[in-house]
Amino acid sequence: MEYLVRGDLCFSIDAAHIETKEDAYLHVKDGKCIATYENVSAELSSLEIKDYRGNLILPGMVDLHLHAPQYAYRGTKMDLPLLDWLNINTFPEEAKYENVDYAKAAYENFVEDLKESPTTRAVIFATLHKDATLCLMDLLEKTGLNTMVGKVNMDRNSPDYLTEHSAEESLKNTVNWLEEIPQDYQHCHPILTPRFTPTCSDALMEGLGKLMRERNLPLQSHLSENKAEIEWVKELCPDAKNYGDSYDRYGLLNRTVMAHCVHTEEEELELLMQRGTFICHCPQSNTNLQSGVSPVKHFLKRGAKLGLGTDVAGGANLSMFRAMTDAIQASKLRNCLLEEKDSALNMEEAFYMATLSGGQFFGKVGSFLPGYDADILVFERKRKGVRKETLLERLEMLLYTEKELFDLKAKFVQGRRIL
Amino acid sequence: MEYLVRGDLCFSIDAAHIETKEDAYLHVKDGKCIATYENVSAELSSLEIKDYRGNLILPGMVDLHLHAPQYAYRGTKMDLPLLDWLNINTFPEEAKYENVDYAKAAYENFVEDLKESPTTRAVIFATLHKDATLCLMDLLEKTGLNTMVGKVNMDRNSPDYLTEHSAEESLKNTVNWLEEIPQDYQHCHPILTPRFTPTCSDALMEGLGKLMRERNLPLQSHLSENKAEIEWVKELCPDAKNYGDSYDRYGLLNRTVMAHCVHTEEEELELLMQRGTFICHCPQSNTNLQSGVSPVKHFLKRGAKLGLGTDVAGGANLSMFRAMTDAIQASKLRNCLLEEKDSALNMEEAFYMATLSGGQFFGKVGSFLPGYDADILVFERKRKGVRKETLLERLEMLLYTEKELFDLKAKFVQGRRIL
Repeated sequence: MEYLVRGDLCFSIDAAHIETKEDAYLHVKDGKCIATYENVSAELSSLEIKDYRGNLILPGMVDLHLHAPQYAYRGTKMDLPLLDWLNINTFPEEAKYENVDYAKAAYENFVEDLKESPTTRAVIFATLHKDATLCLMDLLEKTGLNTMVGKVNMDRNSPDYLTEHSAEESLKNTVNWLEEIPQDYQHCHPILTPRFTPTCSDALMEGLGKLMRERNLPLQSHLSENKAEIEWVKELCPDAKNYGDSYDRYGLLNRTVMAHCVHTEEEELELLMQRGTFICHCPQSNTNLQSGVSPVKHFLKRGAKLGLGTDVAGGANLSMFRAMTDAIQASKLRNCLLEEKDSALNMEEAFYMATLSGGQFFGKVGSFLPGYDADILVFERKRKGVRKETLLERLEMLLYTEKELFDLKAKFVQGRRIL
Repeated sequence: MEYLVRGDLCFSIDAAHIETKEDAYLHVKDGKCIATYENVSAELSSLEIKDYRGNLILPGMVDLHLHAPQYAYRGTKMDLPLLDWLNINTFPEEAKYENVDYAKAAYENFVEDLKESPTTRAVIFATLHKDATLCLMDLLEKTGLNTMVGKVNMDRNSPDYLTEHSAEESLKNTVNWLEEIPQDYQHCHPILTPRFTPTCSDALMEGLGKLMRERNLPLQSHLSENKAEIEWVKELCPDAKNYGDSYDRYGLLNRTVMAHCVHTEEEELELLMQRGTFICHCPQSNTNLQSGVSPVKHFLKRGAKLGLGTDVAGGANLSMFRAMTDAIQASKLRNCLLEEKDSALNMEEAFYMATLSGGQFFGKVGSFLPGYDADILVFERKRKGVRKETLLERLEMLLYTEKELFDLKAKFVQGRRIL
């Protein structure tokens, strides 16, 4: 499978630069990006050209953190802080996924919308229910999106109606879930998913660490989201050096994405950087649930591994473009209100986080640089404007206006068209 | 013209309460709301029923501040602070509206989108160009939206290519504009529009004060948006007690909407409250241009007159639903980051600002209370969810997800259907 994609290319080359190539060609072979060209050489002139002249061509967006079962109630009870929101909104809703018919109906809506969104890669929380999680994975596998999905582990400090009653039960459910995932899945893969330290006993964490190493699995969880949560972790784990250490002491940070890190201080950041842990910034969720604004500009400058997440349903929107502008906007308010100089993110940095930077959790993903997976989005402007815009201006308009001005016309994952 | 609208009614009754009535009736007569009913009495049973059962029925949204000529470049160069953004982005773009053909093409896009938005009332800046402003008013009049539009005044500290060269010239242009507005307009009315103190000489301000009183006109401008701007006003007006006083000393606050008030302190707030000036909070713009977060919760508690604005194109989105969630989100970050207790707005307060509170600038507008203008929006859910939601939850989902989940099915202004 080899072809050229013609159009207006925009892709990150590093945190500070978006490469823009007007009316250029992206060469794709066997699902990988080979090169970009201004013109087609004689040698390549026999290749199929997918002609999207005049359209914006971007790498697929990488959503490093969202909760599939929360999609059904996104945008409700947004005026509660995190721990109340979990108890009042989230836990009763997640309990419904014990019923696989309910789960299927809800997950069908979620998966359909994710497929039609700018996201090509996602790292997803399900619930603690094995069968509902398998159902979600089945639906996702069929989309062609490249995803990681986790059955949640939680064995303490959870309501009776939504808990596993021991570490053993939780680990056994997890192994059963892993065994039942069809061997022939190409696109949807498991990721271990302890909900967060408050709901996971030491024995459970230890067992998940073993499972992670035995089966060579990645892991996702939450870290340092909210001050009340952090205080709670201090009480629960008096021996841990910091919240991050409550995972690290069981070896859980080594192939891991940790959502939030709103209140991560230097010692915890050092630990995450040593372990190569990905920090997933979830700006809208951190705003809605009044957690704060993560110091992402600082993380970027320090060279931490970093991605962006919608965190549905702490965030109400599935769009990674919205996540980008939310990240820029939240960072600007951090800058103004804390009078921190230079903590505002710009478009280049937000775009980098949503593509090339977050994409590394999946491998060489998130750019059109040679050797990267060919995850491609094609956007057509709905109505021509009265102004002549630069390519970078058009990209910025897309991020801020989304479907108001642009239609997602085609979507490719690893070179295969899925939309 | 008398009829009943059947559906799920939501409307503010004060800052803290949204009245919700499931499957109820709104009685409309001669463009006004008469009453709401749970059931139709025998007496009213002969009236036409507009049957929107199962749909959300809301009052029209009131956008107290936006710039029509900036719509064409919304979502571009968002990483500049206010004064740079004006010089680099806004002034060169606004200069194009000297060309009426350009203006017409641009304004047609703006007006079409405003008509299809949840907004039924808007207070709008045009540019300093008389003919382009008349063109905008003509397009708006035809929509049936109820709007106020201002030809901008600016006679100092403006680029040569976008200025009026004296107070006299500016005032003369303004009188000519007022004289040329067709007498038979029903829906679109003029509002005096000094851009802001930095670009308006004392002589111009004085002349506008006279014109305001002679012709009984309202006025709109900008106030205390950005710290650099406020310092500049101090230099320009050393005798003014505060930025607000730079308007007040010419009697310009008495029937007025002032956008922003991000940095309005107690003395200025007192002045605005004494004069009955409406403060228009523009949360997204204040975030994008790094101006800060206005202390709106404090303004609300003090009982100031208050509305909400999109401030296109400091804000990138025309939707007042987005303005509401932006206001909630910005206030939450003010709350977290400044560790101010109780400065976070909730949905009830944001909804109030966008409807009943801001609506007062137009009269009895923004609610379904008896005697209020019948500005009505009907929203249909696109896809049924898996959960049973309360009416208030459905409203919250509409605010956070907008067109993702809901279609605007019908729109009425003063009882007339316009969409």
